[in-house]
Amino acid sequence: MTKRLLLAASAALALSVPAFAQTAYDVPALRDAALNGDTLAWDITEGLTTEIGQRLAATEAEGRARAWAVKKLTALGFKNVHIETYKMPVWVRGEEKAEVVGPSAQKLTIAALGNSGSTGPKGVEADVAYFPTLADLQAAPAEAVKGKIVFISHAMTATQDGSQYGVFGGARRAGPSLAATKGAAAVLIRSIGTDYHRNPHTGVTSWADGVKPIAAAALSLPDAEQLERLFKRGPVRLKLLVTPQFKGEAELGNVIADVPGSDPSAGIVLIGGHLDSWDLGTGAIDDASGVAITTAAAKHIMDAGQPRRTIRVVWFGAEEVGGFGGEAYAKAHANERHVLATELDFGADRVWNFETNLPDSAKAIADRLATALAPIGIARSRGAAHGGTDVGPVLRNGVAGIDLSQSGLRYFDYHHTPDDTLDKIDPVQLRQNVAAWTAMLAIVANAPEDIGSVPATHE
Amino acid sequence: MTKRLLLAASAALALSVPAFAQTAYDVPALRDAALNGDTLAWDITEGLTTEIGQRLAATEAEGRARAWAVKKLTALGFKNVHIETYKMPVWVRGEEKAEVVGPSAQKLTIAALGNSGSTGPKGVEADVAYFPTLADLQAAPAEAVKGKIVFISHAMTATQDGSQYGVFGGARRAGPSLAATKGAAAVLIRSIGTDYHRNPHTGVTSWADGVKPIAAAALSLPDAEQLERLFKRGPVRLKLLVTPQFKGEAELGNVIADVPGSDPSAGIVLIGGHLDSWDLGTGAIDDASGVAITTAAAKHIMDAGQPRRTIRVVWFGAEEVGGFGGEAYAKAHANERHVLATELDFGADRVWNFETNLPDSAKAIADRLATALAPIGIARSRGAAHGGTDVGPVLRNGVAGIDLSQSGLRYFDYHHTPDDTLDKIDPVQLRQNVAAWTAMLAIVANAPEDIGSVPATHE
Repeated sequence: MTKRLLLAASAALALSVPAFAQTAYDVPALRDAALNGDTLAWDITEGLTTEIGQRLAATEAEGRARAWAVKKLTALGFKNVHIETYKMPVWVRGEEKAEVVGPSAQKLTIAALGNSGSTGPKGVEADVAYFPTLADLQAAPAEAVKGKIVFISHAMTATQDGSQYGVFGGARRAGPSLAATKGAAAVLIRSIGTDYHRNPHTGVTSWADGVKPIAAAALSLPDAEQLERLFKRGPVRLKLLVTPQFKGEAELGNVIADVPGSDPSAGIVLIGGHLDSWDLGTGAIDDASGVAITTAAAKHIMDAGQPRRTIRVVWFGAEEVGGFGGEAYAKAHANERHVLATELDFGADRVWNFETNLPDSAKAIADRLATALAPIGIARSRGAAHGGTDVGPVLRNGVAGIDLSQSGLRYFDYHHTPDDTLDKIDPVQLRQNVAAWTAMLAIVANAPEDIGSVPATHE
Repeated sequence: MTKRLLLAASAALALSVPAFAQTAYDVPALRDAALNGDTLAWDITEGLTTEIGQRLAATEAEGRARAWAVKKLTALGFKNVHIETYKMPVWVRGEEKAEVVGPSAQKLTIAALGNSGSTGPKGVEADVAYFPTLADLQAAPAEAVKGKIVFISHAMTATQDGSQYGVFGGARRAGPSLAATKGAAAVLIRSIGTDYHRNPHTGVTSWADGVKPIAAAALSLPDAEQLERLFKRGPVRLKLLVTPQFKGEAELGNVIADVPGSDPSAGIVLIGGHLDSWDLGTGAIDDASGVAITTAAAKHIMDAGQPRRTIRVVWFGAEEVGGFGGEAYAKAHANERHVLATELDFGADRVWNFETNLPDSAKAIADRLATALAPIGIARSRGAAHGGTDVGPVLRNGVAGIDLSQSGLRYFDYHHTPDDTLDKIDPVQLRQNVAAWTAMLAIVANAPEDIGSVPATHE
């Protein structure tokens, strides 16, 4: 406290820095201390994935995870730690079985998509209509689909920026609804993933207004290619049992924690990831590591002394099943001044570039970021920050963002599968993430510039 | 035919070669044609894994696989293609669920071991007794085990020669019986594997005389390490449901096919792999590729002209569940003169060395093998051939063997898991295997030396 007051006193004498009791951070030192010595991000990731395990939104486990988060954040010294609840429709997985019938009778491995309808307890048996891409299904006449089990494939490959998820993910997001409108009995998709393990990739699908949900499930990649090979040999008939249930509304929550800043008028820097996970793995890369890295970085800033701006860490609820947490946060905190919002929801592999969409008046922040991040292998990209599901609603209100982009080359090997477990986290890359976030927070939270708003982009 | 007769006529004039109508093979040419152009091994591997899929011994699927084999081997021009049946006890998987109960309630992924007993339909719930190694369980007093769910771990790593399977596999082979004698309620083992996917490795376990089978299952490696982490935090209680069934005796069979030799007195060269697979994957590396590579090599020899010795290809049944096929073959063919026996049951990755245990009179064969295999990266090892489960019973009668050893670095990532599927086969390495086997058969089947017996090693 003494040191901080002293620094504040000297700062007040200089016109070039604001007259508040903020700490002058040694950014390279904070960055390198995290790079070489952070243990908190691993501790949080291990604790959450081990002591809670899977934590599907609005389940009992997700409630335990929220309590775990409050306890952890409080113990770490964060202020204003609390849960903000909201309601959401609950969907839970049931039985899921798929088998080829006939002379090549065999079992296939599937996982229902979030929001899938049910085949009913007796299942459905039907011929398969195979569509190599979503576009093929779009182009198909209803008579090629009606009464069939539609199988949609695609050719997603691993990319560093993960961009193919957007393109090929359409098969999951929109394919089932499209097939249902054409009268399909059920839908199988090739998992939106890049691995060759018998672990299907689940994920949420959406039904267009008025479309009655049908059973929709993902095949693991080996199973999808097995089905394609069988198809090349002749017609394929499948028996499918998929019995998830919608279980009304349940309460859910965001966990919020602050590192209070010295200058309330300078606005809030919002960071975080999501606390909920899919129900197949323990959500290590999606997204225990996201809450862990952002929290560890905020803790390192807290320990280094009070920042100018409040750093708010949110462990969002219900990202996976429809972004309910991010929407609820933006609505509840619409009257607070957020000046920057950024999330981590892409695993824990190395950050390799960053993007911003800072207003012109704050462009110098990006230059300082570039200087601080280059020594740990992070380059400035020409692109603009776009955020993600959780802070998206805040960004769309006209708040500036910074994206610290991680390598996506492995991410879709594990994403939304039973394989999303602690062993997929590389401790060295995890620490590089904490270093990058710590440096970013040190610069942004203390930036003397005013960080004004950017054009709102409401969809 | 003309060419062969002509060659035989010339051969008959020379004292240095036997007076039979055998073909003089161009070994390097046959080897390189397979290396660069074999498509048959892939065709068989793809066909069997796709058109049949999983084929657990004595199931309906395994019967279809036998019929498939007869059709394929007949179409390829093999002679004397037939099935030899025998009986074996049938074990089939039931439900299998494991969950941690208490404050860290979560599901774990398991697969019952072959020959596992049942928990009954209500399952068992008990505290876990954790043993880092099989030796720890051996050393434990019964009171530390009685009524508990025993969890046996180990530290197997990937090795090129696969030798750690022998050492650490004891946890699976002997651990459950040992735990049962000490009064355990059930047994979980860390999968005998080297991957980090949520796919448990099954495999057969054995019960000592008079020991009543208890439920015994493998945890995937991520789940085993999760259990260890939970254990470090305090006592762990599990609920386990494992309901496999023994279903009496059923008929099973070996599929046998010959490339007849010109000199019946020169003895039979026995090769092959096993047709059955575990019930979780489609048995691509274990062992569709084994029957495929050996069959493709024999076919290339057949197409090049008649060999001196009969080459017999056997697609053994029921290897996985206890080696019933190999035992049945050795018994049924005890009166035939086998001079060499060798099997392929270790995937389809590159052959990197070879071992023989040829009698002194036939040592020159090993020298010629070394010359023929060196150009495709295969070195002679100082070790002695030991065969495997299928040809073991023939070898133990005093028949010489040759082991073409494949790299085992990936093998235990997939072995006995749902992940043993076609995509794990590398076509380039597969062809190198066919090249090695083709060269070996060309040399061995035509060797002018008498291949005498070696000391019998009945256990």
